[in-house]
Amino acid sequence: MSEVLESYAQGSWFTPADEGTPLADANTGETVARISARGPDPAAMITHAREVGGPAVRALTFHQRANILKEVAKHLMGHKEEFYALSHRTGANKRDTAVDVDGGFGTLFSLSSKGRRELPNSTVILDGGLEPLGKEGTFVAQHVYTSRPGVAVQINAFNFPVWGMLEKLAPAFLAGLPSIVKPADQTAYLTVAVFRRIIESGLMPEGSLQLLTGTHEGLVENLGPQDVLGFTGSAATGALLRGHPNVVDGGVQLTVEADSLNCSILGPDVAVEDPEFDLFVKQVVTEMTVKAGQKCTAIRRVLVPEAMAEAVTEALSERLAKVVVGAADDPDARMGPLATLEQRDRLRESVEALRASSDLAFGDPDSVEVHGGADAESGAFVSPVLLRARPGAQEPHHVEPFGPVSTVLAYSSVSEAVELAARGRGSLVGSLVTRDEDTAREIVLGAAPWHGRILVLNRDDAKESTGHGSPMPVLVHGGPGRAGGGEELGGVRGVKHHMQRTAVQGTPDMLTSITGHWTTGSRRDVGDVHPFRKDLSSLRIGDTISSAERTVSRADIDHFAEFTGDTFYAHTDEEAAAANPLFGGIVAHGYLVVSLAAGLFVDPAPGPVLANFGVDNLRFLTPVKEGETIKVTLTAKQITPRTNADYGEVRWDAVVTNTEGDPVATYDVLTLVAKGEE
Amino acid sequence: MSEVLESYAQGSWFTPADEGTPLADANTGETVARISARGPDPAAMITHAREVGGPAVRALTFHQRANILKEVAKHLMGHKEEFYALSHRTGANKRDTAVDVDGGFGTLFSLSSKGRRELPNSTVILDGGLEPLGKEGTFVAQHVYTSRPGVAVQINAFNFPVWGMLEKLAPAFLAGLPSIVKPADQTAYLTVAVFRRIIESGLMPEGSLQLLTGTHEGLVENLGPQDVLGFTGSAATGALLRGHPNVVDGGVQLTVEADSLNCSILGPDVAVEDPEFDLFVKQVVTEMTVKAGQKCTAIRRVLVPEAMAEAVTEALSERLAKVVVGAADDPDARMGPLATLEQRDRLRESVEALRASSDLAFGDPDSVEVHGGADAESGAFVSPVLLRARPGAQEPHHVEPFGPVSTVLAYSSVSEAVELAARGRGSLVGSLVTRDEDTAREIVLGAAPWHGRILVLNRDDAKESTGHGSPMPVLVHGGPGRAGGGEELGGVRGVKHHMQRTAVQGTPDMLTSITGHWTTGSRRDVGDVHPFRKDLSSLRIGDTISSAERTVSRADIDHFAEFTGDTFYAHTDEEAAAANPLFGGIVAHGYLVVSLAAGLFVDPAPGPVLANFGVDNLRFLTPVKEGETIKVTLTAKQITPRTNADYGEVRWDAVVTNTEGDPVATYDVLTLVAKGEE
Repeated sequence: MSEVLESYAQGSWFTPADEGTPLADANTGETVARISARGPDPAAMITHAREVGGPAVRALTFHQRANILKEVAKHLMGHKEEFYALSHRTGANKRDTAVDVDGGFGTLFSLSSKGRRELPNSTVILDGGLEPLGKEGTFVAQHVYTSRPGVAVQINAFNFPVWGMLEKLAPAFLAGLPSIVKPADQTAYLTVAVFRRIIESGLMPEGSLQLLTGTHEGLVENLGPQDVLGFTGSAATGALLRGHPNVVDGGVQLTVEADSLNCSILGPDVAVEDPEFDLFVKQVVTEMTVKAGQKCTAIRRVLVPEAMAEAVTEALSERLAKVVVGAADDPDARMGPLATLEQRDRLRESVEALRASSDLAFGDPDSVEVHGGADAESGAFVSPVLLRARPGAQEPHHVEPFGPVSTVLAYSSVSEAVELAARGRGSLVGSLVTRDEDTAREIVLGAAPWHGRILVLNRDDAKESTGHGSPMPVLVHGGPGRAGGGEELGGVRGVKHHMQRTAVQGTPDMLTSITGHWTTGSRRDVGDVHPFRKDLSSLRIGDTISSAERTVSRADIDHFAEFTGDTFYAHTDEEAAAANPLFGGIVAHGYLVVSLAAGLFVDPAPGPVLANFGVDNLRFLTPVKEGETIKVTLTAKQITPRTNADYGEVRWDAVVTNTEGDPVATYDVLTLVAKGEE
Repeated sequence: MSEVLESYAQGSWFTPADEGTPLADANTGETVARISARGPDPAAMITHAREVGGPAVRALTFHQRANILKEVAKHLMGHKEEFYALSHRTGANKRDTAVDVDGGFGTLFSLSSKGRRELPNSTVILDGGLEPLGKEGTFVAQHVYTSRPGVAVQINAFNFPVWGMLEKLAPAFLAGLPSIVKPADQTAYLTVAVFRRIIESGLMPEGSLQLLTGTHEGLVENLGPQDVLGFTGSAATGALLRGHPNVVDGGVQLTVEADSLNCSILGPDVAVEDPEFDLFVKQVVTEMTVKAGQKCTAIRRVLVPEAMAEAVTEALSERLAKVVVGAADDPDARMGPLATLEQRDRLRESVEALRASSDLAFGDPDSVEVHGGADAESGAFVSPVLLRARPGAQEPHHVEPFGPVSTVLAYSSVSEAVELAARGRGSLVGSLVTRDEDTAREIVLGAAPWHGRILVLNRDDAKESTGHGSPMPVLVHGGPGRAGGGEELGGVRGVKHHMQRTAVQGTPDMLTSITGHWTTGSRRDVGDVHPFRKDLSSLRIGDTISSAERTVSRADIDHFAEFTGDTFYAHTDEEAAAANPLFGGIVAHGYLVVSLAAGLFVDPAPGPVLANFGVDNLRFLTPVKEGETIKVTLTAKQITPRTNADYGEVRWDAVVTNTEGDPVATYDVLTLVAKGEE
């Protein structure tokens, strides 16, 4: 008898006591594995996550967490063949599996990279700038994101057993939360295989990752206000969770990503002979057939100008006729089976419902020719089905056929196209094929509030387009309304969704202590040693250079103008400069001021400071006129050691002041500084 | 008979057909106004908002909307006396009214200012940077926020009839949404008075603001996935709304801001003789008595070190004994009545429940001495009540006395203080009184995930502190868990909460057209006229300067080092520069490169460009060595006319390239440019 799928709870593998029920190979109906509803105790798993996993993850910095994710991805790459073989059994062919398996690993790599580049190498994220709350500067506020002492519970869908797990656990882990993964039954054996490899790698801290196969009973019931519940699946189940007492009244934060009735719009500018026509047809067929259409992001509604409806329907039908359906491991087949026979039954019901207002244009929902001798009845094979909506059709906007089924709808104007797009009541993604920039602006801005993502495709980006159906780790995934109203991914946006934003008010010194980031107005420590002589291990937040002074002469300004060629009248022409409403006379170049400031703060001899690699937020606040004396104060503001290099980044707060002590320029100087000995 | 409160629906005032029920003066029990449940048709109001108000608001730019809010605030300032008189009848004395009325106007001014400074003068907000999705640069993505074609419905609480309305409608209006305001019955007459003045001003576009008094029946039922429902009130009602079928399954976005069991913590470092001790006591008493404790942000739980519990209880009792209770218009009274007799009954029940685990330390919930002859029975007067929790008390963490009642709880360690703070299961605000920075870091970071705002108070910021109980328009207001899980305000954060974030993918040119912001990789238009000769009315996004070239000689580098004093070894010492891991030889100063670049792009004669006021995101990508030739390309990226000035801001994309055409520096140049003739 086949193996009963295990769970991984409180640091060990748990084998159910019973035989469980069989999970069928999508191609053959053979039993691949068995699954039991008698899993480990969810309450104990949650406690373990909170008490062991959470503290372990939160002891790591964002960069350390990001590095672990990268190493996990590398480790999993070594087992791709194993995952591909199991993936075929779910009905996913090679093309489908690339989206799930390689797409999942790519998501880990991408989020790891974003985490290292866009988050600090610490445990608190600053949000926005400092908010002054009093004139004296003794009371200020800073928004921060902190990690919750909770657990992230992830209820995944059957269609992406690998990507679905990884795209949810990676942002949670970066955010400092331990995860409990609950895979969908149908394809759980693939999730278990990948999960086992992660645990085997020993890369994730104990308690940071647990797996519950079989049932999520008792899971939501034990969550609290610091826990995050992520769900991907049907809108109906999403609504059930949204109405769960512990969500309604228990403070559990729920994110729903539901399948939606995504549309693709053919622009009114596109003619049959344009490359955009072919791109449109090709994209629709791709989205219908990848994963046999079992994607939350698939195109369900094909919106075309009335005059083009016939041509599009014909072209789609022609191309669909070439789609070879066969077993997932059949190299000659383009489309594999659905995940289960139950999904096939449901799909047939949906098509039946759609036919209330649409006519079959291609394919027979009840019959399919299967390539290579696969059994059309034991396997969950279906034909792609194209429908053509009759005028005023309602069903295409609310019946979701979760398979290779799309409906062509005609629109008569750009505003009707937008209106039809909105009839899906909120979608994950929409696409538009056009080369007309004005049309694109009108349709995209009209449809944007109804979508989490919109793709504009034409001959100019087709080669590099990642496609209508592909959520990207750096872009938000999720949509309003029917699509669940949630947001996932989006680089560090998805990390922040797992954290709490808090406004912290106090003195600048308090905020420096709390955030680990030097806050404007805090103590400056002017010591005996020039801070450029300190390596990262000895440099401290607040270490300050208070420079000597330099008087800016008219000769300096004249000379700088001549030397650089920047002879803008405000620096060279007394009369014209006097007429300038902001200056009222000759002023020094802003670039002269910052160049002289650098001359005042730099410590020239070789030392730990390797380079100035940039400047941020430079603002010229007060003009500097001839004869004024400037000085600069430079304070170490943020120290970011790079995890995999022998140096790190130091951000310095720079303030140039004039004779009166008023700030003339403020900016951040960015340097690379050697780590030195710890 | 008193006036029945009107509603304002579909552009006119609606008078209910029946007499309604009386609303009592909190001080005297006299009828102030009457309120009817037979209001206008909510469905028609929603349709009017969507079809008339929404398009009118969305036709304005963010800056135009912000200016309207400022004008509304100015107009309302002229009617303060009227509002103060009505406010007293709600039980709010002068101090309380300042928080509600002046606080409400201040919120309009603040959000107006934030909107003009932090949002573009257009209708789309960019979120984050450009995400490259292909190596050739033909396919990129940009996150944008767009306005929803929906309506914002605001169900307000009785305790802040002015601020509560304004703090919700201002961010909605900035976001492009029309509002329907539903005031709480008890104090609706004040809201109606302020609302009437807004309508009378004629400043808000028709349909952008409607008022529904009496009942919200039929309101939530008619909302859809583009609508936003904002609620402030009890956690119990918040849960009811969260479980509403149209929220669970209809895609309505709900934000809840619920009263919560906020704590204030006395740090373990504070001794009785420290100024912090007095600050703590004073703040607790203030928060207990302002608005007679009827504030979502009031301090309910007073957490003190065990050894200090006695001293704190005594000091609080002593100070509370001095609180004179009397009518809201009695200048000698410090605390007014509760809003209604019903609130008084409920408060007494809460105190009774708290006494299960706490002892009365000050005050009698059933009796109060009222100053100046006000009637202690007809008016909803109560005494401040202080309780002292017995060890292990549970009630203070879940029973909310909505009035001048707090409970002192003792903690034995800093970690127990954090644990007790978290026992409120999510609060709007917490405060900590300490001067110890390490303690502050530990407590604030531990408590932050449970709070929307945390204030650290001590002698250094007390003078400027805005206080534990005051939500600030620039800071987020809302907390996790029991506090509702929502977020309001926070400057433009609150605006974005009302909008939809969408990832838009396409060619750079498409993104430029859609966002109105020049996207890296888009067409550059090098015309015959130097763009610095164009005023705002003729300058276009994409207008470009492609500069001449300049070779950087060793003499230039030597000279710049000598002239500026920046003799960093990488510019002056061949041997040392050769040893630098990043340079491998003498390189030009970064400031030299950008100074020479300015010399290449500047057009010197007087013209519409008034000043360069800053530089953003300057990154030095490739070192420039002697003999290399540089040139610069400058492209108009964003044009922001200032609404109330004869110039605006232009952001230019700057790229300096070397002999090989590789970028050596990229940055944004910020200029002020005259508007010229339209």
